[in-house]
Amino acid sequence: MTRSLRVTVWNEYRHERSNPEVAAIYPDGIHAALAAPLAAANHEVRTATLDELEHGLGADVLDSTDVLLWWGHQAHAEVQDAIVDRIHARVLEGMGLIALHSAHFSKIFKRLMGTSCDLKWRVANELERLWVIAPGHPIVAGLPERIDLAREEMYGEHFDIPPPDELVLVSWFQGGEVFRSGCCFERGAGRIFYFRPGHETYPTYHDPLIQQVIGNAVRWAAPRAPIAPRRGRSGALEPIG
Amino acid sequence: MTRSLRVTVWNEYRHERSNPEVAAIYPDGIHAALAAPLAAANHEVRTATLDELEHGLGADVLDSTDVLLWWGHQAHAEVQDAIVDRIHARVLEGMGLIALHSAHFSKIFKRLMGTSCDLKWRVANELERLWVIAPGHPIVAGLPERIDLAREEMYGEHFDIPPPDELVLVSWFQGGEVFRSGCCFERGAGRIFYFRPGHETYPTYHDPLIQQVIGNAVRWAAPRAPIAPRRGRSGALEPIG
Amino acid sequence: MTRSLRVTVWNEYRHERSNPEVAAIYPDGIHAALAAPLAAANHEVRTATLDELEHGLGADVLDSTDVLLWWGHQAHAEVQDAIVDRIHARVLEGMGLIALHSAHFSKIFKRLMGTSCDLKWRVANELERLWVIAPGHPIVAGLPERIDLAREEMYGEHFDIPPPDELVLVSWFQGGEVFRSGCCFERGAGRIFYFRPGHETYPTYHDPLIQQVIGNAVRWAAPRAPIAPRRGRSGALEPIG
Amino acid sequence: MTRSLRVTVWNEYRHERSNPEVAAIYPDGIHAALAAPLAAANHEVRTATLDELEHGLGADVLDSTDVLLWWGHQAHAEVQDAIVDRIHARVLEGMGLIALHSAHFSKIFKRLMGTSCDLKWRVANELERLWVIAPGHPIVAGLPERIDLAREEMYGEHFDIPPPDELVLVSWFQGGEVFRSGCCFERGAGRIFYFRPGHETYPTYHDPLIQQVIGNAVRWAAPRAPIAPRRGRSGALEPIG
Repeated sequence: MTRSLRVTVWNEYRHERSNPEVAAIYPDGIHAALAAPLAAANHEVRTATLDELEHGLGADVLDSTDVLLWWGHQAHAEVQDAIVDRIHARVLEGMGLIALHSAHFSKIFKRLMGTSCDLKWRVANELERLWVIAPGHPIVAGLPERIDLAREEMYGEHFDIPPPDELVLVSWFQGGEVFRSGCCFERGAGRIFYFRPGHETYPTYHDPLIQQVIGNAVRWAAPRAPIAPRRGRSGALEPIG
Repeated sequence: MTRSLRVTVWNEYRHERSNPEVAAIYPDGIHAALAAPLAAANHEVRTATLDELEHGLGADVLDSTDVLLWWGHQAHAEVQDAIVDRIHARVLEGMGLIALHSAHFSKIFKRLMGTSCDLKWRVANELERLWVIAPGHPIVAGLPERIDLAREEMYGEHFDIPPPDELVLVSWFQGGEVFRSGCCFERGAGRIFYFRPGHETYPTYHDPLIQQVIGNAVRWAAPRAPIAPRRGRSGALEPIG
Repeated sequence: MTRSLRVTVWNEYRHERSNPEVAAIYPDGIHAALAAPLAAANHEVRTATLDELEHGLGADVLDSTDVLLWWGHQAHAEVQDAIVDRIHARVLEGMGLIALHSAHFSKIFKRLMGTSCDLKWRVANELERLWVIAPGHPIVAGLPERIDLAREEMYGEHFDIPPPDELVLVSWFQGGEVFRSGCCFERGAGRIFYFRPGHETYPTYHDPLIQQVIGNAVRWAAPRAPIAPRRGRSGALEPIG
Repeated sequence: MTRSLRVTVWNEYRHERSNPEVAAIYPDGIHAALAAPLAAANHEVRTATLDELEHGLGADVLDSTDVLLWWGHQAHAEVQDAIVDRIHARVLEGMGLIALHSAHFSKIFKRLMGTSCDLKWRVANELERLWVIAPGHPIVAGLPERIDLAREEMYGEHFDIPPPDELVLVSWFQGGEVFRSGCCFERGAGRIFYFRPGHETYPTYHDPLIQQVIGNAVRWAAPRAPIAPRRGRSGALEPIG
């Protein structure tokens, strides 16, 4: 019934191999946990990780990707600038990008935002409650009015991003902060969704509602026969003078 | 392949019955010209007109409408306020609304915008050229970078609407004006698209590219399992004190 | 040093005359508490209340008002539609409007928004913490990154307003909700600021930081030699044909 | 009456020294033409150019600049990245930036936007007409509803920028294109205004209305006691558990 998209799930894949606590939650890596429900929804899903050749993101992979998911944390600096350039160009051409949790500090997200993307944070096993701010938005289709995550990392404002083109979710944290947790951006012909939850020591990506948001976001971010506008020097369409 | 939507095309249907020039272009009414390509795209299309009982918009019709198209011009004042109230409530619940051309001054559009919706205008058989401003937007999917309409009415800025949530098309007019011609708004759970072209004395709605924009807009404006947030008095979710 | 503005503070002024608890906090009315710091900032401040002739908002008053503050709650329905029309026209001409707390349900705010403006609420003596989301915005100039109000009414999402043109403040509530508490809108040539705090049984408007936000908002909302665009039929500026 | 700001006008200053046609229009450089009306408005104005040490933008200069104007064209690549980093950081801290004409392709503007900032262009001595889209905006205070420039370079859509936070001016070009000519952005605590006109072979910056827009933009972009939010690890404000 829904269109099958070519989805690439990128994961840094370091925590899972060095931290037993994370490995217990995501034994095959965060990418595998993200990929499974998307594959179950009939998308063509590939995964790619930092330590692969070209981080698993060769030109052929990116050129055949409709939507790219990105999870990174401790090794942002290891991502090669040439690969970031390639992803950036593809987003402007129309490829969707879903930036997850600590991807707020990834090179590609910072490049697209043009700001520091800095924020407050705290790991204290606290309740996060995400409230829907835009009840008609496709990214929250079919959801209840809020999602409770019993234990998550806190991210707090001010989150130094451009004003989102659409603000879909705002989080309440037990420790007293708020955060713009679901933010839509349009850049070139591409669509970007930043989605906050997903600290590696919590089972967030196993939560069905979180999976539903990500599934909706993938469909929202899919390219839609984008227009390729003429650039550069252009002759006049009408008489001048 | 695409989802079939329940579309209702509303038309004032007065010009076509009193002005032979208009009747020659739209012998079965503007509503019929708008409905045909939508029906051909497998939507369930109904039409409704001003002089029908309840303007053809009884509660059962509106309750079973996913997207409402609206064309009105000389008889905005004859639309009953009770029907406007009903449409307004349905939009906030999630029904899409496509406001066409002189519908900028319709009661329902003004109610939703909260502004005068006033503008400049001129009927002088001039060229209108619509430029795509948001090349990745679903409403312009598959289109070229511009649409030329050889003869149209001019609408000029300042168009007194709220800043659109997304600006998709801007028109150039031969006589020297510009206009925000394709404007997206979110109100409640509903999506609204204002689309400028369509003066009754020109064959605009027979243009395949214009039909393509409208077809895309219908899909964009369709409700997507909108959330029904709780309203009114609410108990605390967390302990206070 | 700063420009003196003509400010009119409108208050329903019913709670203060019927509820001793409110009268104890605002013995001269909420309008007096709002007016005092604005007068101290050298603005020309007048007050007006519901039970005055024309609600104290005759054409001469509105025509000589740069910024109107509005506090209403239990008697929204008693505000005459003709006065609402007058305020509405003045906002579109450029007069600023600061809608305070329960003014979310006032006729003028709903008219300008075009939505239901409905929300969740609870009176439970709980902590409200307002976080700054737009640190460079003039409405929060000179403030700390957050304001804590020890006891306030809760307002919760979904707040059924159009997406704000600028989102300046978001509230965290002890009971578990969030709310877009400081929202900017442009309508016509006018600027509107919705500011959430101010339940009548709490001393919110005596708080110096809340007064600072309101003072900043008054300056932000002041008209700035707005342009009076031509409307209606317009001759061509360039040759056609 | 208005606050005096510390304004730095940066100019590439190459065309004026190599092209007699440009030198005839701007004998002391574009920077001098931009600086004069700002100085006349009692701002503290400095100028800086590409071929000065550190491009005239040492840390002391930037640290004491409220608003930076930027005109560059043929030598964008010669601007050192370290200086771009410094400007970028200052904008996020609150310094205003006015990007003029071909500065759309400057390193600093592209860094802040995150997109290609590409566009169409043509030099054909044609009429540009800028229409006001936001009549109450401070950047167009006191202006007529349009500005006509008898001869200018054409810039056409699609202009690959993020959707502006506020769209103030749209240009009509004689040759048949439109362009978003006056665009406001908020990034961090800083405000950015992109203003299209100003090709070096035309006397655009001698036009009093263009000078008025720039003067208004400088005041709009001035920092306003921006908030310095806490970043990084943060303790809980409320009990967790």
